[in-house]
Amino acid sequence: MDKGIKHHQVGEAVDRYLLIKTATKQIASNSKAFLTLILGDHTGEIEAKLWGVSPEDETTFVNKTIVHIQGDVIDYRGRLQLKIASIRPTSPMDGVKINDFVRSAPLSAEEMLDEVNQYIFEIQNPSIQRVTRFLVKKHQQAFIESPAATKNHHEFMGGLAYHVVSMLRIAKSLTQLYPSLDPDLLYAGVILHDLGKVRELSGAIDTTYTLEGKLLGHISIGANEIAEAAKELGIDGEELLILQHLMLSHHGKGEWGSPKAPVIREAEVLHLIDNVDAKINMMDRVLERVEPGEFSERVMALENRSFYKPTFHKKPLDL
Amino acid sequence: MDKGIKHHQVGEAVDRYLLIKTATKQIASNSKAFLTLILGDHTGEIEAKLWGVSPEDETTFVNKTIVHIQGDVIDYRGRLQLKIASIRPTSPMDGVKINDFVRSAPLSAEEMLDEVNQYIFEIQNPSIQRVTRFLVKKHQQAFIESPAATKNHHEFMGGLAYHVVSMLRIAKSLTQLYPSLDPDLLYAGVILHDLGKVRELSGAIDTTYTLEGKLLGHISIGANEIAEAAKELGIDGEELLILQHLMLSHHGKGEWGSPKAPVIREAEVLHLIDNVDAKINMMDRVLERVEPGEFSERVMALENRSFYKPTFHKKPLDL
Amino acid sequence: MDKGIKHHQVGEAVDRYLLIKTATKQIASNSKAFLTLILGDHTGEIEAKLWGVSPEDETTFVNKTIVHIQGDVIDYRGRLQLKIASIRPTSPMDGVKINDFVRSAPLSAEEMLDEVNQYIFEIQNPSIQRVTRFLVKKHQQAFIESPAATKNHHEFMGGLAYHVVSMLRIAKSLTQLYPSLDPDLLYAGVILHDLGKVRELSGAIDTTYTLEGKLLGHISIGANEIAEAAKELGIDGEELLILQHLMLSHHGKGEWGSPKAPVIREAEVLHLIDNVDAKINMMDRVLERVEPGEFSERVMALENRSFYKPTFHKKPLDL
Amino acid sequence: MDKGIKHHQVGEAVDRYLLIKTATKQIASNSKAFLTLILGDHTGEIEAKLWGVSPEDETTFVNKTIVHIQGDVIDYRGRLQLKIASIRPTSPMDGVKINDFVRSAPLSAEEMLDEVNQYIFEIQNPSIQRVTRFLVKKHQQAFIESPAATKNHHEFMGGLAYHVVSMLRIAKSLTQLYPSLDPDLLYAGVILHDLGKVRELSGAIDTTYTLEGKLLGHISIGANEIAEAAKELGIDGEELLILQHLMLSHHGKGEWGSPKAPVIREAEVLHLIDNVDAKINMMDRVLERVEPGEFSERVMALENRSFYKPTFHKKPLDL
Amino acid sequence: MDKGIKHHQVGEAVDRYLLIKTATKQIASNSKAFLTLILGDHTGEIEAKLWGVSPEDETTFVNKTIVHIQGDVIDYRGRLQLKIASIRPTSPMDGVKINDFVRSAPLSAEEMLDEVNQYIFEIQNPSIQRVTRFLVKKHQQAFIESPAATKNHHEFMGGLAYHVVSMLRIAKSLTQLYPSLDPDLLYAGVILHDLGKVRELSGAIDTTYTLEGKLLGHISIGANEIAEAAKELGIDGEELLILQHLMLSHHGKGEWGSPKAPVIREAEVLHLIDNVDAKINMMDRVLERVEPGEFSERVMALENRSFYKPTFHKKPLDL
Amino acid sequence: MDKGIKHHQVGEAVDRYLLIKTATKQIASNSKAFLTLILGDHTGEIEAKLWGVSPEDETTFVNKTIVHIQGDVIDYRGRLQLKIASIRPTSPMDGVKINDFVRSAPLSAEEMLDEVNQYIFEIQNPSIQRVTRFLVKKHQQAFIESPAATKNHHEFMGGLAYHVVSMLRIAKSLTQLYPSLDPDLLYAGVILHDLGKVRELSGAIDTTYTLEGKLLGHISIGANEIAEAAKELGIDGEELLILQHLMLSHHGKGEWGSPKAPVIREAEVLHLIDNVDAKINMMDRVLERVEPGEFSERVMALENRSFYKPTFHKKPLDL
Repeated sequence: MDKGIKHHQVGEAVDRYLLIKTATKQIASNSKAFLTLILGDHTGEIEAKLWGVSPEDETTFVNKTIVHIQGDVIDYRGRLQLKIASIRPTSPMDGVKINDFVRSAPLSAEEMLDEVNQYIFEIQNPSIQRVTRFLVKKHQQAFIESPAATKNHHEFMGGLAYHVVSMLRIAKSLTQLYPSLDPDLLYAGVILHDLGKVRELSGAIDTTYTLEGKLLGHISIGANEIAEAAKELGIDGEELLILQHLMLSHHGKGEWGSPKAPVIREAEVLHLIDNVDAKINMMDRVLERVEPGEFSERVMALENRSFYKPTFHKKPLDL
Repeated sequence: MDKGIKHHQVGEAVDRYLLIKTATKQIASNSKAFLTLILGDHTGEIEAKLWGVSPEDETTFVNKTIVHIQGDVIDYRGRLQLKIASIRPTSPMDGVKINDFVRSAPLSAEEMLDEVNQYIFEIQNPSIQRVTRFLVKKHQQAFIESPAATKNHHEFMGGLAYHVVSMLRIAKSLTQLYPSLDPDLLYAGVILHDLGKVRELSGAIDTTYTLEGKLLGHISIGANEIAEAAKELGIDGEELLILQHLMLSHHGKGEWGSPKAPVIREAEVLHLIDNVDAKINMMDRVLERVEPGEFSERVMALENRSFYKPTFHKKPLDL
Repeated sequence: MDKGIKHHQVGEAVDRYLLIKTATKQIASNSKAFLTLILGDHTGEIEAKLWGVSPEDETTFVNKTIVHIQGDVIDYRGRLQLKIASIRPTSPMDGVKINDFVRSAPLSAEEMLDEVNQYIFEIQNPSIQRVTRFLVKKHQQAFIESPAATKNHHEFMGGLAYHVVSMLRIAKSLTQLYPSLDPDLLYAGVILHDLGKVRELSGAIDTTYTLEGKLLGHISIGANEIAEAAKELGIDGEELLILQHLMLSHHGKGEWGSPKAPVIREAEVLHLIDNVDAKINMMDRVLERVEPGEFSERVMALENRSFYKPTFHKKPLDL
Repeated sequence: MDKGIKHHQVGEAVDRYLLIKTATKQIASNSKAFLTLILGDHTGEIEAKLWGVSPEDETTFVNKTIVHIQGDVIDYRGRLQLKIASIRPTSPMDGVKINDFVRSAPLSAEEMLDEVNQYIFEIQNPSIQRVTRFLVKKHQQAFIESPAATKNHHEFMGGLAYHVVSMLRIAKSLTQLYPSLDPDLLYAGVILHDLGKVRELSGAIDTTYTLEGKLLGHISIGANEIAEAAKELGIDGEELLILQHLMLSHHGKGEWGSPKAPVIREAEVLHLIDNVDAKINMMDRVLERVEPGEFSERVMALENRSFYKPTFHKKPLDL
Repeated sequence: MDKGIKHHQVGEAVDRYLLIKTATKQIASNSKAFLTLILGDHTGEIEAKLWGVSPEDETTFVNKTIVHIQGDVIDYRGRLQLKIASIRPTSPMDGVKINDFVRSAPLSAEEMLDEVNQYIFEIQNPSIQRVTRFLVKKHQQAFIESPAATKNHHEFMGGLAYHVVSMLRIAKSLTQLYPSLDPDLLYAGVILHDLGKVRELSGAIDTTYTLEGKLLGHISIGANEIAEAAKELGIDGEELLILQHLMLSHHGKGEWGSPKAPVIREAEVLHLIDNVDAKINMMDRVLERVEPGEFSERVMALENRSFYKPTFHKKPLDL
Repeated sequence: MDKGIKHHQVGEAVDRYLLIKTATKQIASNSKAFLTLILGDHTGEIEAKLWGVSPEDETTFVNKTIVHIQGDVIDYRGRLQLKIASIRPTSPMDGVKINDFVRSAPLSAEEMLDEVNQYIFEIQNPSIQRVTRFLVKKHQQAFIESPAATKNHHEFMGGLAYHVVSMLRIAKSLTQLYPSLDPDLLYAGVILHDLGKVRELSGAIDTTYTLEGKLLGHISIGANEIAEAAKELGIDGEELLILQHLMLSHHGKGEWGSPKAPVIREAEVLHLIDNVDAKINMMDRVLERVEPGEFSERVMALENRSFYKPTFHKKPLDL
């Protein structure tokens, strides 16, 4: 019923709950402090300025606070901005909870977990299956909640699991088209490839890199998780080496963060599938609010290209 | 019943028909001329030396001649070589024909053409459908016979059509997984993307680049074919621009031969699918004779990598 | 008598007609709208702010409007700015016309066309001559008016034709110095090489890229124009391939937008001449207002270099 | 007394024991098999051809066999070659053992181990000290015998430990010159940085890469060794992360095999020291037989440079 | 006793002498002129705005003026700023002199010169020693005062000499560890390598590049200084070539400004030592005010990395 | 009358004087020594084998010897080879001299020197003129004889002067087309730019790099020559800096050997002209023996391209 913040137009009045994503204190040219707020709900974000803030305001309107706001949407230098008329923090009486204000995957946690487990079930090599099952179990909660990145693609709650599910579906269709591919390696590789992100990233809201993430990176964390899982399960042999290789090589080459380039057929295919899903996701995200006949903003992670939506393609749903 | 030349081992006697793929005259250290022959059938190739040739021999044992040979397979510096005991050219009496000695696609020409036409049938935008159908019709024979390249991948008779069919199948599964993708653009892009190769390459046997191929390249040839087809069909409008853009951008970036990088979602996906099919094909080809537990030769087109076949994968079928 | 806007110094009063090149609405920190205007005449441009604009102002002071302005030139953060005292739109009564406010080539359209036609006349190969003559005729008006780029070099009315004329003169002197060069190919290559820009760019004022320009680029557009011209004229043969090759390869390599690197002597020389004229033009433009003994601003298109004008070189003419 | 094989000149007779480093079967132009032998002792290597070999010879003169040879040193196309007059395999009666024929570090195993342990003793942070001590103990034998590489630098028995000892000495002098450096981290980083090579390489003679080495690489192996050691010792905390980071980043950047670039001061310095020792070692090796006033052969790993020995530098000792 | 400007916290009152490093006039949105001042003492710098300046102010508060200021330290958009309450220029009566407000090397000029001369004394080759001594003498004053760069590393008074002294100490320890290195070449190379900077840079305060520096660069200037010194001293021979080669190659490769890559062992080592000292200096500078457990700002000259200070390292001294 | 060695076809008898360019001893598979000779005259070169040579032969048939040869031209693995029937060294009685067997510039030394001096005469700035005149005088003989390179372009006697003359002619036409260019700087830059080659290269026959060339390179040598000339002539001032800058920057950027990129208009144009003349010369050389309708061999220095000669271009003169 209620359309989200993403769908408000310039000139519309706003009267709703919003989550403070980030709050940054700045000093205006009149030397008074003000806050730049990034406010969001499950559909998107909008910037707002809170002028002339008191020290008390600074401790009230922080990161991860849900507030109630009245105001108008204005156009400031070509970007939408929310002009605040009134703002108040919420209490339990408001009956609002943080998860309702966070973007999340189009599938539920249960659906995604079921689907991943179905693929694990199809893995026939017992060593590969056991390591994969063990690690998904071990990190189940984080696996199902974590985003796949801090920005660019799948940067929402459940993004990691959703990225894995999408890749598994591509993997399945490729194993049907190319009988030379080993589904065991490909499924296990897909399911595990970004698992290190549950330790590299700080969680689903206001996601940042952990110290471990910055010093080791999800690829090395993930390779180590596999080694430890195998030790705990008493599994050894070439399967173990190859699972680690799939993990280490999935970024394709050194410049992109992989200490080893893929030298197993399924490792190369894992890298290609990762690319396909990430790139389609990035383009979808940037094109979803572009009108037919227009170009999108530039996408840094896609060589800074701006994408065109043909005039004979559909208008975005909610415009 | 009769295994092909690829399956002969060192020490085996050979008594069979073979096609001369290339014949190169050289001078031995005793100042006598000899020929280095690359002999092949539908399964592969082997090198042979024909020592002490007369001028008459030089004009008899040329390129695209079928010969009957007796001899032995030997190991020369780590590579197989056919030591010729006797050799004779064939006559119509032998009842052998050149097409039986050439590697070709695993699907028949009819099967491939049917499948491509089925996809054309599914294209709903009439401009896109008509241009695609027109060009496949116009070049039908060459399209069905041409290799997709002179080396690296799909370098066999029918390789171009087979490459297209494989890509269409991936395209279909991606359009099912990602509803944002426009199947019309993707199918048309896949079918047309390498069509310029029918003028860039010299045909199915002993394939080389034509002068036009060297001066213009299949990408520019293809874009021009689309423009001419549209003119002939009286088609104009954005569809035409976009079909040409799909053609021009399918190598992804300037360094790889595309004068424009993809700026349409389906153009980027076309490039990604092309990559997936080409790379899997290259890996399959190089791994198909590698024993489990061994590394392949290096593959120049895959960053000079050598690929490993896990010990728990199957042995090649014919070893 | 009347010096242009480029020659006004800080502190001088301004009372003159100027063309609005671009008008951009912004919001000041007091939440009021203002316009940032780029105002120009045939000598150059200056920025101005129009504060506190009404909705009516926004529709009056737009792109391509000639206005009459009174004000002062000030220095704002190291750059000249025009401080507006009064501004009014013009009517036919003012007797001013847009072409007088646009930078244009130092030669007249007729002079340039005459010179180009003289070179076409000197081409001896009939196929090459006919295609060249046909295309110049077909696009004559646009060819004579179009800039050669949106920025960097020859970005003024008639810039394309002027760039061609300058290159033809270099080409002529090189064919005299190097008898191995074929003047026919070189002249035709020079005349046609940027012709695709008449469809890639939107025209002489407020030049932008067309959709066709963004999706195909002037190189592919140009190659297609040659192919169509040849078809219409019934011309075939190697000349046609080579003219297209000259077009496709004139940026020198893939990274610079050419799908083929030059493999014809004259194609390489065409690329070199294009480079020489473009680079000298860029340096002239940036150095023309630099005082002897000073460095210019940085030039992005020349590897971000800043150029030095020796103290023993002449002062700019109008300082 | 007895000079090594490296010091024989063209024309000298040879009558000595030598180790077959590699033996490769080839076929001569007369179709007879011959062996190309790389023969060596502790000073260097020389090539020899063994003509007309029988099948029995092929199984006798293999890899890692010590043979007794009589013959002459000749010059073959600018390189020294040993022309074999007689050759026989050795028996226990000959009283020769393989280690005497292998190049090894200039320090004894005991000396190197003592020095490394002394540095471990100086590490004051208990977590860092314990992990370092544990891993050196765990792999002590391999650590003391392994080369540091298969070629380029420190490619001899004990090369790994010798490389570590040299780097420790540089590290010590740098910590004295730059008080900001933490000796604990630097010493531990130096001692552990290449430890993964004990699993990446196959050992001291005829060194090759193991499967694990090819699929994971010594950097990832080493990071995993640290993680496991810490687990076994019950050590956690930031020291553990940082030791792993030192390991992961010591090649400096992605293109050179490090999944993370150094972001700790000591990690950057570790990378720099590794570079200094490796490069000096490479230059020493290539210059050690160059006459003053001459240029060396090209060194691939040093950007293919050829190094010059000044005329006022000393002649090589054994010329 | 009196802590420097670098150590003032937000909210602290400031009442002290400071040097104007740079003064830049700007226009505020109310059209009034203001000055942005970079104020500094020997410990660091802080930005301040001087609002509403008169033309007289503009000529008073310029570059290299010592002023007395009262005000407060505030936080402006995350950076410290000095809010000026009162400001006045100083007169001789204030008894302050410019050198007290400039960062300088941790060793005195005499100490550094003594140490350099001691190394010159140790050079045994007379040609090398005489050229080195001559050039240090010739440029002694500038050598002892010049910074080593305008930013990044050793960018303070005496920075050049301090950089040389640090490198000499590393050079000494390397010649002890690696007997193959020639101390004469290494010491002379270190002492002379950046000498051209005395002509490339404008001096110790507000350092900029000279015209000669911009057109020729310190490497070519230095090589020419050596050639002229040798001529004046009547020195010829290979030593001269090699000293020039050390100079020309010390940046390691073309992209980094060296017209020749090192092809002498000591030239390569000179380049490596230069790197080690510069990088440690850059990291020290950026980490010196970072709290344990925090990351530094990004360092452009170190591939834009941000460095981490471990929690178990010491707090900065003056926090 | 007598056609040169370049014009002999396979099968023709040869009976003429030839110069031994290089003589390399090798060992045949029968263990006998033979010489590989590169024989040449003023038109080109041909390879020959001299089998079964005695030690005396080895000292007779060396580098820079003129021999009389009888034999036949044969085709060996696709390349022409001279099969020697008889060979003898020449004596003064033969009346042949070495200069007749060396390729040289198409203009005489006098013509070239006159033309260069004419351009020097046109230089109006006295400082620039005097330095230029002084250096041409100082190295006049070497300047007139030296090749411009050891391979690739202008690699013949007088090549350096011829390269300069060609560039001067281009420079003259550019200064006529672009009045902004300063002819003084451009002419002096052209004349001096490669002068360092008289010390970098060993002379006109069997040209190699000198030690000075390898350690310093012609760019630094040349900059130093200018500095010394100016000192000797008592010339100072900006002209001197700029002449050195023209020298240092004429390769365009660091990767190509210039320690400074051009930052003077004429320096950039000098680099462009150098490029134009060198590239046209390389293409002319490689195309001069290519038949119309054929591709040339690949040219390493032109990005490994193979060039096409159109069918409508002329056949090479002497085929």
